[in-house]
Amino acid sequence: MLIVMEKGATAEQVRCVTDRIKALGFKPHPIPGAERLAIGITGNHGPLDPAEFEIIPGVLQAIRVTKPYKLVSREVKAADTVVEVGGRPVGGRRVTVIAGPCAVESEAQILTIAARVKEAGADLFRAGAFKPRTSPYSFQGLGLAGLKILARARDETGLPIVTEAVDEESMAMVEDYADAAQVGARNMQNFSLLKRAGKSKVPIFLKRGMSATLDEFLMAAEYIMSEGNFGVFLCERGVRTFADHTRNTLDLPIVPAVKHLSHLPILVDPSHGTGRREMVLPLSRAAIAVGADGIMVEVHHEPEKALSDGPQAILPEQFTELMRQIRGMAGLVGREHEDAQAPGPPPQSQS
Amino acid sequence: MLIVMEKGATAEQVRCVTDRIKALGFKPHPIPGAERLAIGITGNHGPLDPAEFEIIPGVLQAIRVTKPYKLVSREVKAADTVVEVGGRPVGGRRVTVIAGPCAVESEAQILTIAARVKEAGADLFRAGAFKPRTSPYSFQGLGLAGLKILARARDETGLPIVTEAVDEESMAMVEDYADAAQVGARNMQNFSLLKRAGKSKVPIFLKRGMSATLDEFLMAAEYIMSEGNFGVFLCERGVRTFADHTRNTLDLPIVPAVKHLSHLPILVDPSHGTGRREMVLPLSRAAIAVGADGIMVEVHHEPEKALSDGPQAILPEQFTELMRQIRGMAGLVGREHEDAQAPGPPPQSQS
Amino acid sequence: MLIVMEKGATAEQVRCVTDRIKALGFKPHPIPGAERLAIGITGNHGPLDPAEFEIIPGVLQAIRVTKPYKLVSREVKAADTVVEVGGRPVGGRRVTVIAGPCAVESEAQILTIAARVKEAGADLFRAGAFKPRTSPYSFQGLGLAGLKILARARDETGLPIVTEAVDEESMAMVEDYADAAQVGARNMQNFSLLKRAGKSKVPIFLKRGMSATLDEFLMAAEYIMSEGNFGVFLCERGVRTFADHTRNTLDLPIVPAVKHLSHLPILVDPSHGTGRREMVLPLSRAAIAVGADGIMVEVHHEPEKALSDGPQAILPEQFTELMRQIRGMAGLVGREHEDAQAPGPPPQSQS
Amino acid sequence: MLIVMEKGATAEQVRCVTDRIKALGFKPHPIPGAERLAIGITGNHGPLDPAEFEIIPGVLQAIRVTKPYKLVSREVKAADTVVEVGGRPVGGRRVTVIAGPCAVESEAQILTIAARVKEAGADLFRAGAFKPRTSPYSFQGLGLAGLKILARARDETGLPIVTEAVDEESMAMVEDYADAAQVGARNMQNFSLLKRAGKSKVPIFLKRGMSATLDEFLMAAEYIMSEGNFGVFLCERGVRTFADHTRNTLDLPIVPAVKHLSHLPILVDPSHGTGRREMVLPLSRAAIAVGADGIMVEVHHEPEKALSDGPQAILPEQFTELMRQIRGMAGLVGREHEDAQAPGPPPQSQS
Repeated sequence: MLIVMEKGATAEQVRCVTDRIKALGFKPHPIPGAERLAIGITGNHGPLDPAEFEIIPGVLQAIRVTKPYKLVSREVKAADTVVEVGGRPVGGRRVTVIAGPCAVESEAQILTIAARVKEAGADLFRAGAFKPRTSPYSFQGLGLAGLKILARARDETGLPIVTEAVDEESMAMVEDYADAAQVGARNMQNFSLLKRAGKSKVPIFLKRGMSATLDEFLMAAEYIMSEGNFGVFLCERGVRTFADHTRNTLDLPIVPAVKHLSHLPILVDPSHGTGRREMVLPLSRAAIAVGADGIMVEVHHEPEKALSDGPQAILPEQFTELMRQIRGMAGLVGREHEDAQAPGPPPQSQS
Repeated sequence: MLIVMEKGATAEQVRCVTDRIKALGFKPHPIPGAERLAIGITGNHGPLDPAEFEIIPGVLQAIRVTKPYKLVSREVKAADTVVEVGGRPVGGRRVTVIAGPCAVESEAQILTIAARVKEAGADLFRAGAFKPRTSPYSFQGLGLAGLKILARARDETGLPIVTEAVDEESMAMVEDYADAAQVGARNMQNFSLLKRAGKSKVPIFLKRGMSATLDEFLMAAEYIMSEGNFGVFLCERGVRTFADHTRNTLDLPIVPAVKHLSHLPILVDPSHGTGRREMVLPLSRAAIAVGADGIMVEVHHEPEKALSDGPQAILPEQFTELMRQIRGMAGLVGREHEDAQAPGPPPQSQS
Repeated sequence: MLIVMEKGATAEQVRCVTDRIKALGFKPHPIPGAERLAIGITGNHGPLDPAEFEIIPGVLQAIRVTKPYKLVSREVKAADTVVEVGGRPVGGRRVTVIAGPCAVESEAQILTIAARVKEAGADLFRAGAFKPRTSPYSFQGLGLAGLKILARARDETGLPIVTEAVDEESMAMVEDYADAAQVGARNMQNFSLLKRAGKSKVPIFLKRGMSATLDEFLMAAEYIMSEGNFGVFLCERGVRTFADHTRNTLDLPIVPAVKHLSHLPILVDPSHGTGRREMVLPLSRAAIAVGADGIMVEVHHEPEKALSDGPQAILPEQFTELMRQIRGMAGLVGREHEDAQAPGPPPQSQS
Repeated sequence: MLIVMEKGATAEQVRCVTDRIKALGFKPHPIPGAERLAIGITGNHGPLDPAEFEIIPGVLQAIRVTKPYKLVSREVKAADTVVEVGGRPVGGRRVTVIAGPCAVESEAQILTIAARVKEAGADLFRAGAFKPRTSPYSFQGLGLAGLKILARARDETGLPIVTEAVDEESMAMVEDYADAAQVGARNMQNFSLLKRAGKSKVPIFLKRGMSATLDEFLMAAEYIMSEGNFGVFLCERGVRTFADHTRNTLDLPIVPAVKHLSHLPILVDPSHGTGRREMVLPLSRAAIAVGADGIMVEVHHEPEKALSDGPQAILPEQFTELMRQIRGMAGLVGREHEDAQAPGPPPQSQS
């Protein structure tokens, strides 16, 4: 923490600041300047609140020098984290592709799509049984019945399941049926849910909030890890800006920014991030090119009948082409995504 | 809903759209244009999803014409709603002032501040027993013990209590001890909490999310009302933008925009909305001037010792001056805020 | 400037930084910390570029402590500036109201509206002869002919004229015919125009850019003042955000923020700031309530025939009511706006 | 244009709207609905202004159905435009790389860097002789002397030159010395400069404004083309949002959005777009992956001595590696960037 005093700060005001620093058990370091005096603080082991100093008369600004997170930080753990989801690695050298429809609508729909994305080479299957919808009058998901359908899809395809939990009650069900639980963008600062996720027995797929800064995003992960669950993988899914050519503005530069600060894997969701089907393929390529550990893509065999988010879902045949391009892209950036259909280790050995 | 076809859309594509409209039980109205064909839809009683049409080949855009909310709408209820909080009206001709510290820290702190704001003329008392904090390592509130302190403050001052609930568990406690429950900005789209709030026995004070559009804000209120709780009052508290001279950008124009579309009361929180003590007074004046039904202001007698948000809290003597100016301002815009200390009708007659 | 070193920065890297500071003629002040080393810099008389240090290996961040502006700053000039426009003061105790249509359309239109706003008590008349329009196919203004019409309106009403210049050529004409030249939001960082404005013989009315930070806004004023023109008055006119209930988001908190840092007058334009006629009155009240030195309002007697921005113009009779409310509001905040129609000092004595 | 009437609109109000439509020479198409009446308009050959209708009593909203641009539109010209810059194609199958320092600082600096980027395979050379700087006290560029140095660099390397013009005067000089003129982000809505660019004898490199929507960006290009200069190529360079981990938020999804609507080439500038050197390589890869026609990258051999934007410049050896990766990426997306060092056609035959 660095305290910058106002131009005409009195000796009395300066002493008030240094006294407060000492009272907190830290050490003040006055730095006289041509125009202003600044006071450095050392000896604190955790972050200080600028507020504590900015309210003292004569203080212009208190500048935080140390980042507020610990467990998510690369300073604490230098090596990339690999999270195991149903036996499959997320993070590390391999690129992960999560695919499936927005919502569980019926068993037939889920089994059809799961078979298609498995065939094309997806690693994990996704579909929502609990749907956070802007309107109370929109389809809210099948709930427990949906989770049972997802479990059936895993039995048939071998693909581990990632699905969203929206509160403590649904989290308890999701961890019983799925291989990873998603905390959605709207709940990124639902701290009660984050704490519950921190006690979950499954890994957590944490999506960035619509107006979350990088620090807030990492602090949400810190909440989960601070409760003991270290299986956290992140997802950029677009932020809210003035731009109106996409539903959200997909912020790809956050991928290298997260990788610089944190050891956690980060994926990109170009489906929600753009809200437009024709953008899913180019932005999926760009996500891998920028260094993401994978993508999450919405796939539906009958998007015109989808109960939610149909316009952003791609068709299974488009997904097959996407997988082909993702594999080429992965190779180019020193990553890999072997063909799931390739001979060699049988599927069950992967999980 | 209006469907706009692409420039070279074929007759086949147009028929596909009109067939789908008929299949849904509605009536298509083709409008031939010089460059493009548009198709109006009538007969729907609720909103349609543009997605359902935008995915049909040949469709350029589907434009929603009707707003998605009902119960919050002035079209459904023309007269301004007045919500009763602990016997005091929120909304209507009278301006409401909610005041108190950010968090419950101790009984002495709460009783001191409650007495001061009561004396200055506040209508409702606020302080958080459950605090949603960005960092898991920050002070998280006193919980149930804090609620009991708040109840004691009500006993001593007669001021009804507004305090935040952050999940179902805390909502159950809040409705037992407080007169209104706040749903905070970070939980504005925590739909599970909104549904629970809709079943609460106390009115709900709903704060706008940091990047919520007007429609999303009203839909969050609709969630609560759709569960049967019609006692909802809203609060603008700043949104997230690029501007860095305040912590958030206080969006005062949303006040007349809400009043135009909805019958619900809307207050303004200049403390969180700016994050700076010296801005609380001018923005409080501006809030009343723009037509808000009241303000919520953070007051602390020792802000330099506050456990959270100290720099935005004003001192009790500043609050007294603020109340004086608010009363003048209220008169100027055809509202009122009689002096709570004035002789005349005893307190109980207000409820 | 404060340089924060990375956690594992070597002694060699630290020396590299201190050597560079000395090479620039300044003095380094190392501040050892528990986790990191920071280095304060003193002796610089102007701002340093963080860039110069952030590129040195081992440096985590360089934090600017001193603000980059001088002439606009209250540290340089503590007293509020009052700008004279055609003999009328802008800034100081009196609230200023600038009114008129968006564009000069015809002599009849201008003379009609000028007479009406004069009668209602406006201080300055505005209308654009040069119109910056998003589309090259939209009405671009009458140019010199428009300026001559404006001069005629001044002759008839006595109201000084404020009108926009969009380039060097139009600036030369505007300063010949008008009493103040406006630099519009889209040109706030057109530095060639700002420099030219700095050599103008008339005061400059500088509008905030659509995504300008407070610092950028003040630096644009600094550009003008650094060329010798100290007659600058500012205008908040809304910024671009995700919010869609108004055309722009009117950022009223920037008014006290500017007043804190700068001695220049600042007005508010609720017409462009909201883009909606029904919001002009409430936001005008709020602008005065928050402490603005005045407002600029679009008035048109036939808004449905206006060649630009008709939906945000208010009618002359609405303007009369607005003036009535503004006068009440001014009194409440210790400002004034005497009735221009009042008997007493003749118009020329005001200048 | 579609006019939506308010719920309780009277027959009189509806007639007022249809009369106005007829008066304008167009045809009204009333579409009765369950809740509201809508009126379609046909017969207009250019765009209408929603304002013209929204001010009529009883009208809720006027919705524009046709886009406002023509010459930039793919509806007018379906095939991709290829712009010739100094004999080199921009757009089409080949990926273009523009490289060089932020500013011309000296002849030695320019000749050194130009030789290095030429050697690595750059297509065009860039450096600013006229610098738009936020502060009037920052280095403003060498002006004409800088242009002469750039011309010398072209003579030595054969690389065509792209450099910024900031006003009419500098545009006249730039078109005499350079092969393409850049209109910078801060001038994207400097319509006088755009019109002047439309009369320039060289192609224009138009950068997106910091808060420009897609429509505004394309309309700025339309301004240039409407004056007769069809040689326009675009550049995404980041927009202003709340996100603080990069200097701007690079909006890669605008690339496919522009390609969908327009035939003009679009490049990406990851240097200004992120403001951070370590992000230039990953975002350059992502730009090609998303479908951009090229990139513009800042390169400096001594970034720690650069007079502007040093922290975002990469070193020549990093640029060589970037070129290697860009070539691989280009091949993967069906584009190409042959090695400039390859034997075969001599350099002069390319221009």
